[in-house]
Amino acid sequence: MKKVAALVGEAIKKSLAGDGSQLYKAAIHLPIQGGKRMRPFLVVKSCEAVGGEAKDALPAATAVELVHNFTLIHDDIMDRDLLRRGVPTVHTVWGVPMGILSGDLLFAEAFNVLLSGGVDCERLRRSAEILAKATVVLSEGQNMDMAFESRIDVSEAEYLDMIYRKTGALFQASAEMGGVMGGGDERSIRLLGEYGRNMGIGFQIFDDYLGMTSKEEVLGKSVGNDIREGKKTLIVIMALASLARGQLLKVLGKKTASDSEIAKLLESMGRHGVLEYVYGKAEAYISKATVAISKLPSSPARDALMDLAKYAISRKK
Amino acid sequence: MKKVAALVGEAIKKSLAGDGSQLYKAAIHLPIQGGKRMRPFLVVKSCEAVGGEAKDALPAATAVELVHNFTLIHDDIMDRDLLRRGVPTVHTVWGVPMGILSGDLLFAEAFNVLLSGGVDCERLRRSAEILAKATVVLSEGQNMDMAFESRIDVSEAEYLDMIYRKTGALFQASAEMGGVMGGGDERSIRLLGEYGRNMGIGFQIFDDYLGMTSKEEVLGKSVGNDIREGKKTLIVIMALASLARGQLLKVLGKKTASDSEIAKLLESMGRHGVLEYVYGKAEAYISKATVAISKLPSSPARDALMDLAKYAISRKK
Repeated sequence: MKKVAALVGEAIKKSLAGDGSQLYKAAIHLPIQGGKRMRPFLVVKSCEAVGGEAKDALPAATAVELVHNFTLIHDDIMDRDLLRRGVPTVHTVWGVPMGILSGDLLFAEAFNVLLSGGVDCERLRRSAEILAKATVVLSEGQNMDMAFESRIDVSEAEYLDMIYRKTGALFQASAEMGGVMGGGDERSIRLLGEYGRNMGIGFQIFDDYLGMTSKEEVLGKSVGNDIREGKKTLIVIMALASLARGQLLKVLGKKTASDSEIAKLLESMGRHGVLEYVYGKAEAYISKATVAISKLPSSPARDALMDLAKYAISRKK
Repeated sequence: MKKVAALVGEAIKKSLAGDGSQLYKAAIHLPIQGGKRMRPFLVVKSCEAVGGEAKDALPAATAVELVHNFTLIHDDIMDRDLLRRGVPTVHTVWGVPMGILSGDLLFAEAFNVLLSGGVDCERLRRSAEILAKATVVLSEGQNMDMAFESRIDVSEAEYLDMIYRKTGALFQASAEMGGVMGGGDERSIRLLGEYGRNMGIGFQIFDDYLGMTSKEEVLGKSVGNDIREGKKTLIVIMALASLARGQLLKVLGKKTASDSEIAKLLESMGRHGVLEYVYGKAEAYISKATVAISKLPSSPARDALMDLAKYAISRKK
């Protein structure tokens, strides 16, 4: 995973070398902070899992990471977030106009890098089409997420649809693009997509779960921040439908809620089966993901994808 | 031009049919207002000028118009503009977050429409690459435009570089994409690109000229608004270097400048050769554009491109 991250990091730096202007400084600010680079890893390992070579997947892997970073920069403006990966967000440093523009630049560079990738034309075209369609779905996901903020009655199904769009779709696209770039057959590409989608959804559910159950010193942010911000995570949705509802309503959206109030809520969520339910849901998606790729021929790359799925719900942060 | 505009209008409606959400309403708000649709016309006629069929150019024509609209929506946020094509801008109606998101959606749809265009793969790939690279250049142009706002010492060369990036690059890409989709040879594609770039630059210079020399009832906005807003157009840059400088400094960036103050400035600009110089500059670019396509074989499409170039500096608004 570190090897792929390093290669993609280099490719991003090269594609955003630019002209030394503030625009390029703003554009590279977030992508060089790193992050897990899970999506590029998914592209490369999916390519290898169908018998392709890692180098053929690199332009697609870089493009996916650029799209991911572009959406983070724009989402941070929309959500008025001040910090990301431990550093100030782009619009906090350079202002909203430059935040918008540098996100647009990353998006354009994503297609530039991908389409000049210089391998089989039909693989490039199809990968780019998958990426464009996934970005449409990502926009829909962000739109749903923003609409949920002002609602208290978000259902589990709506939440799952939202995180499919906001997270699952780009994981699915990453795996499919890897399969396409590696020259996989239609069945393999479909199985990889199924793996990616379910893994992404499981990853996101577990992410919300971690935000409530982990420790501050591991997370790098306060436990229960999602609750204080009133976010409609699956934990919140299920707690609202459970006997923990009363305890939750005391602190949901309360920016000043104390750690002991959050701890009481956590205890109540545990007692009423909310935590167990949510963890089980994440596990079920990861299980679907692993069933899908277990149908591919055995290979070190497939093993790596299996490990990635397990990591998605066992990581500490 | 009306026929192409109607076909592209239909294609845009189809690509943004969406799910009835606010996101899709916001996204289609600007593109269905129409506008001149010059870029799609350029794509289609360039395709025909190299012997291609109009229908093969339609996905590319639609994609270019979507990219153009995406940049307008984001530029309007960055520039805090309230009106566009006589209607409130997207962010004025739906707020900044939805303005950002709907622009992103148009951008993604542009590549989606283009890459699923279903003709020769290499033509699609190359067109999409041209469009992605042009969008990078557009971002650089908007960045320069924003940086110029706070400067009084913008040179003519810097201004010309900025409008090449902000306007010329997408006109150039439109003509090249048309040439590529029509299966033109490298020389024809290069000549079309040269035509598009110079036509776009001439068009933009004339646009700034019109804003100072036309009549309010024709323009649909006050004469001299660019001056009141302190924009660094070529007219302003040349006037600052001329004997009209004193008159200009009285009103440049003065939001409350009266019509008679603007009229006095206009008279001074006329007397000191500024208007003549700027019009001559626009004419010179249009002339370069027509010289370039005169090297293509004679055809009705080539005639249409010639007419478009003449229209660019003879229109009333």
